Amino acid sequence: MRRVAVIGVGVTKFGRHERSSAELFAEAAGDALADAGLPPSAVQALYYGNVVGGETEKQLHTGPQAASVLGIPTVPTTRFETACASSHAAFRHAVMEIGSGVSDVVLVGGAERVLNVTTEESTEYFAYASDAQWEQTLGLTFPGVFALVARAHMAKYGTTEAQMAAVAVKNHKHGTRNPKAQFQKEITLDQVLKSPMVADPLKLYDCCPFTDGGAAVVLASEEVARKARRPIWVLASAAASDWMLIGDKRDLSRVPATERAAASAYRQAGLGPQDVNVVELHDCFTIAEIVATEGLGLFEPGTGGIAAEKGWTSVGGKMPVNPSGGLKAKGHPIGATGAAQIAEIVTQLREDAGPRQVDGARVGLTHTLGGNTATVLVSLFGRE
Amino acid sequence: MRRVAVIGVGVTKFGRHERSSAELFAEAAGDALADAGLPPSAVQALYYGNVVGGETEKQLHTGPQAASVLGIPTVPTTRFETACASSHAAFRHAVMEIGSGVSDVVLVGGAERVLNVTTEESTEYFAYASDAQWEQTLGLTFPGVFALVARAHMAKYGTTEAQMAAVAVKNHKHGTRNPKAQFQKEITLDQVLKSPMVADPLKLYDCCPFTDGGAAVVLASEEVARKARRPIWVLASAAASDWMLIGDKRDLSRVPATERAAASAYRQAGLGPQDVNVVELHDCFTIAEIVATEGLGLFEPGTGGIAAEKGWTSVGGKMPVNPSGGLKAKGHPIGATGAAQIAEIVTQLREDAGPRQVDGARVGLTHTLGGNTATVLVSLFGRE
Repeated sequence: MRRVAVIGVGVTKFGRHERSSAELFAEAAGDALADAGLPPSAVQALYYGNVVGGETEKQLHTGPQAASVLGIPTVPTTRFETACASSHAAFRHAVMEIGSGVSDVVLVGGAERVLNVTTEESTEYFAYASDAQWEQTLGLTFPGVFALVARAHMAKYGTTEAQMAAVAVKNHKHGTRNPKAQFQKEITLDQVLKSPMVADPLKLYDCCPFTDGGAAVVLASEEVARKARRPIWVLASAAASDWMLIGDKRDLSRVPATERAAASAYRQAGLGPQDVNVVELHDCFTIAEIVATEGLGLFEPGTGGIAAEKGWTSVGGKMPVNPSGGLKAKGHPIGATGAAQIAEIVTQLREDAGPRQVDGARVGLTHTLGGNTATVLVSLFGRE
Repeated sequence: MRRVAVIGVGVTKFGRHERSSAELFAEAAGDALADAGLPPSAVQALYYGNVVGGETEKQLHTGPQAASVLGIPTVPTTRFETACASSHAAFRHAVMEIGSGVSDVVLVGGAERVLNVTTEESTEYFAYASDAQWEQTLGLTFPGVFALVARAHMAKYGTTEAQMAAVAVKNHKHGTRNPKAQFQKEITLDQVLKSPMVADPLKLYDCCPFTDGGAAVVLASEEVARKARRPIWVLASAAASDWMLIGDKRDLSRVPATERAAASAYRQAGLGPQDVNVVELHDCFTIAEIVATEGLGLFEPGTGGIAAEKGWTSVGGKMPVNPSGGLKAKGHPIGATGAAQIAEIVTQLREDAGPRQVDGARVGLTHTLGGNTATVLVSLFGRE
C-alpha cells in the first residue's frame, strides 16, 4: 500500500445545533479543506459516517447529501455505519482507497444530529446498535451494557466507583481547555459520585452526553502530502469485530475487539504501546475508558482505574488520554466521533493544541468502539 | 492495484420471508462460500449492505450481526449504505481492500427485510433516500421521482407508455426462467397498460415490488482465485454521484451519474459498451431501465424504449438486459440488490444460467442506482 497522510482537519463546536447533520458536516469539511490548502474541487471521493440519520432526520443516503451541500455533487461518495465507530470505519476504508492508488485526495468525515429528538427517543435509537431480537426486547440500552462491563471489572479487579469518577473529572478538566467541547466546566469527584444513578454503578457523570456536531479530515497520498504544509502520517488503521450479543461474550471485563484491533495496528506500524505519546479513545462511559486503556496495552489489565486515579492519563501525566475532553466532555455526535478523534490527534502531533497540548507528542493513537463492543477501530499516526 | 476475482456467489429466493435480514444474509453467504469451496473461517473481512434495517427491524450496526450469524464474529466488518446501491458500493470498496493487498478473501453481500411492515411504511422509509427537508416534505416518493424522469424522457424523445411496458413484459418473461425470482409469471403488454396508475405515467406493472432477500459474493486476490474452480475477473468497479435534489438536476431525461460511472468503468477496463455481452441494471421502474441502457452507452440517447420494444434487450436479442428478471420480476431487496446483480452476471459468465443463459457471454456489466439518481455504481466482469 502507498503511504497516506492527514493534511487537514476541521471540527464544529459540539453541543446543540439548529442545523441538519449535512450542514454541520459542511462547516467541518470547509475548515478541513481550508486547513489542507485545497479547494473542494480537489476532493476525489467522500467517505461519510452517519448513524441515526434515518431515525432523527428521516434521512438515509446521507453521502450524496453531504457531497451536495459541499458543492461537489459528482464525487463518488459512500455512507459508512458501524454504530459509534462509523467515521473511523470511513477513515480506514479511505486509507485503502488512497493506499491502493485509486485516489490521491479523499475527504473523510461524519456528522450527527440527535438533540432535535427527545432523550427517550435517542436512547431507543442508540439501542438499535444492539440486537433487535434478543437485547432490545429486554430493554437493554447502552448505559445498561456498560453497567454490566463495570460490574464485571469491579468484581474481577476491585475497580472502584471513585476510579471511574476520576476519569470523568479528568476529561472534564481537559474539556475546559478545548473551545469546541460541549462541556467546558470542571467537576469534582464528589459531584460525580453524588450524581443521579443511571444504571448501577454508572451515574449521570459517568455517561457521555447526546451531542450534535460534525468533523472532517482530508487524506492525501504521499505525493500530494509532500506539498502540504503539515502532513501527519497514517502509520496504521485496523478494525476488529466481536460477537454481536452481550450474552455470547465470555468476559465482560475485557473488550477483545479492542485487543485484536490494537494488535493489528501495532503490527502494521511496527510499534508497541510504549511508543504512543497521546491517545484519543472511546469513553462513552467512564468504565469504557478504563477498559480501553487496558485493551490497548497502555496499562496492565485491572490497572486502568488506578491509572486514572493517579493522574497518569491526564495531560502532563505519563500517558495522556483524551486531551480533547473525550466523548465525556467534548461530546459524542456519534457519526462524527471517529473523525473528531483523528482531528485531535493530528492537532496534537502538529503541536497546535494550545493549553491541552501534550508536550513532544510524536506518535498518537485513536480508538473508537461501536455498539455492544462488537466493532473497534484503532489507528496510529506519526509526525516526521 | 492487484487483480480481483469473484469465486463464489449465493442468492436466497426473493420474496416474502419470515426471517431477519441477518438470517437471510447467512443463507446467501453460506451458499456463496460453498460455491467458492471455502469455509467461513477463510473470510478476512465482511462488507455488508443494508438500507432500512433501522426502520423495518430497529437494527443498525448490521455488519457485526451479519458476521455473528455466520459464526465469524471476529472479522472486521462494515455496513455500507448508499440507498439501493448499498451492496454494490460494498463490493467496490471490497475490491479496493483486496486490490491494496490488505486481504485475500473478502465476503461481500447484503440483505433487506421490508415485507414485515406495511406498504405505506416501506414507501415512507424508501423516501428517506431523498432529501428530508426539501423533497419528503412535498410528498415526493420514488414512483413520483421516476414519473418525472418518464415524463421528461417522453417529452424529449417521444418514448411511449407501450415502450416502458415492453420492459416489464420482457423482464417478467426472463423472471419465469429464474427459480429465485419473486415473480415467475409472464404478463402481457395490455396487462401493464391497464394496470392501476401509481404515478402518472407509471402504472403498477411499471414498478418493481417490495422484497425480502439476501445475496452474497466471495472476492479473492489473483493468488487465491487461481486455485478456485471458476473465477470470474473484476475488470472495473466505478462510482459516481450527482446532486441530491431533483430540483438541482438540469435534464431529468438523463442520469449523469450513470454516464460518469460507466465512462470511468470502461476506462478502467479498457473496454467500451460494444464489448459488453450481458447486463444486469437497475430497473426499479421500467423507465429506469430505458434511461440506464442509454446512459451505459448500449443504445443511443432516446432509443432505449425502441430497443425494449424491438426485443433487442431480451435474452436472444443483440444486447440482453436483466436476464435474471431484473428488479422488476426478480424483486428488489434493496440492500441485497447490487450483490444479486453481480451474482447473476457471474452465473452468466460461467454459462451456468440454464434457460436464461446468454450464449457466449464473455463480458458482463452491473449497474445499480441509489436514491434520486444521486448514486450510481457500475462494474465490469470477464471470464478468462
